Amino acid sequence: MTILIAVQGWDPAPWLERFRRLGVDRTVLDAREPFDPAAVRYAAVWKPKPGLLASLPNLKGIFNLGAGVDALLADKTLPDKPIFRITNPDLTKRMTEWVTLQVLFHMRQMPAYMANQKARQWKPLDQPGAHELRVGIMGMGILGRDSAEVLMRLGFKVAGWSRSRQSMPGLEAFAGTEELPAFLARTDILVVLLPLTEATRGILNRDLFGKLAQNGAMGAPILINAGRGGLQSEADILAALEDGTLGGASLDVFEPEPLRPESPLWLHPKVIITPHISADSTPDGLVSGVLKDIAAFEAGETLPNEVDRKTGY
Amino acid sequence: MTILIAVQGWDPAPWLERFRRLGVDRTVLDAREPFDPAAVRYAAVWKPKPGLLASLPNLKGIFNLGAGVDALLADKTLPDKPIFRITNPDLTKRMTEWVTLQVLFHMRQMPAYMANQKARQWKPLDQPGAHELRVGIMGMGILGRDSAEVLMRLGFKVAGWSRSRQSMPGLEAFAGTEELPAFLARTDILVVLLPLTEATRGILNRDLFGKLAQNGAMGAPILINAGRGGLQSEADILAALEDGTLGGASLDVFEPEPLRPESPLWLHPKVIITPHISADSTPDGLVSGVLKDIAAFEAGETLPNEVDRKTGY
Repeated sequence: MTILIAVQGWDPAPWLERFRRLGVDRTVLDAREPFDPAAVRYAAVWKPKPGLLASLPNLKGIFNLGAGVDALLADKTLPDKPIFRITNPDLTKRMTEWVTLQVLFHMRQMPAYMANQKARQWKPLDQPGAHELRVGIMGMGILGRDSAEVLMRLGFKVAGWSRSRQSMPGLEAFAGTEELPAFLARTDILVVLLPLTEATRGILNRDLFGKLAQNGAMGAPILINAGRGGLQSEADILAALEDGTLGGASLDVFEPEPLRPESPLWLHPKVIITPHISADSTPDGLVSGVLKDIAAFEAGETLPNEVDRKTGY
Repeated sequence: MTILIAVQGWDPAPWLERFRRLGVDRTVLDAREPFDPAAVRYAAVWKPKPGLLASLPNLKGIFNLGAGVDALLADKTLPDKPIFRITNPDLTKRMTEWVTLQVLFHMRQMPAYMANQKARQWKPLDQPGAHELRVGIMGMGILGRDSAEVLMRLGFKVAGWSRSRQSMPGLEAFAGTEELPAFLARTDILVVLLPLTEATRGILNRDLFGKLAQNGAMGAPILINAGRGGLQSEADILAALEDGTLGGASLDVFEPEPLRPESPLWLHPKVIITPHISADSTPDGLVSGVLKDIAAFEAGETLPNEVDRKTGY
């Protein structure tokens, strides 16, 4: 059955090429060219033009080509059809790589060692071990759980916080607004993998940073955000780094993106910036995953990655 | 029974303090002060003065306070008593943190992203996944095996190379000189955890770098050395980075240490330098491990960390 590819903000060409190569039994349409709206059964999209999906009378399902659906749900004309997020195992693995890298980068004091290297300074620093450090993960979906598993294997004390309690062997599980202060108070390194919803917008602010563990084994706490830029206040992050409420940050997401060239975050010595690549996957892996999801949906299977419009993820 | 602490090159004071605090049932002597050589049963040492150990008539065992015994074995007067290396689980964990960090740092292209950050450039790069990358670990003792386990969990294709074959589930195991070329030819990221022996001195040279996988998923191969500085030729590393035989390096060890201030390695944009801290442990953890080892030895137990003087580790 016919699939429409509607990709904006990314280059659509490689997506079209892969859907056509890997989905040989499908008709694959390009939303930038004229096409028959009635022919489209599935739409594979990234930030599609508002109104586009509403114009497809025979649409059966929407397959979002990234993890975040906030841009999609902002379309007031969005038709009432099931939406599926990408939950490719490959995407989970890429996120776990990035999160593990950033946690280790800060805990092993690489910002200080790299500054010393530039100054040709040989200077061993005191090194707390992973077992002395408490990582807290906000957002315990598939991504959060996989990161938690690897960080526990490395010896960190890991806690998770989510709307509903998510238990895992070895994990300290916190849930809901009322348990957030206790979760933050035991956290030296905060990893944020939350979706952007009305409840989470702006959650990473001065007030929250002040509730993290101060004077823990890392000294000041570390913020690692790979969720969404809309979760964080840049001004509050800068102020918290300035007055020592935060000891460092790794940020992969911003609002807007790209991060504006004049942002003081770019050159801050305690900030690592990556251009929204934390869970960048190989497009071949993603596209074959979406094609499998479409086939499973056609076969009447229930997909675990269907988006709940009420919660927004 | 009496323990002599003989530490050179490091500050002996914190070691003495901890042995005295944690070994309350022991007499702990300081080699820098006058003492009765006949009283000493055990020596806990780091690079002790040549001849010192030979002057202890009732010595029963030598406990080396680091992983490498090359400095100790170079003492021509070294008495024929059992030598034990530190194999604290804490030390293994610290090494696995450092190795995992450096592998992820290069595979996730952090040298390029950090350069782009300085230039305020938002520029996503192509990202091969761990399953496309082949890590090769030279030295498959306790440290190598633990690193291999975590890297396999992250999805890397991992192979090990050692003198005698060390098998692990999921690991491609190579052994001996004759299998070294095949091991190198399948390796994109080379992790070196070898001891320094007559057989390994200078092994990380131009010839070996040229045998690593060229044109793999990383482009040029990466060298990560946390073994000993004497394993590597600095001139060959610099030349291989210059002509593209190596794509990057993380080095924790040098000969001599500290790395001399005029070394071009310090400011090379593709080189990460840390001051021999890869497996830095909390001294409390190390000292309590040594005290346990001494008690086990006194009780007649066989310790797995006894050094074989023939192989040098």
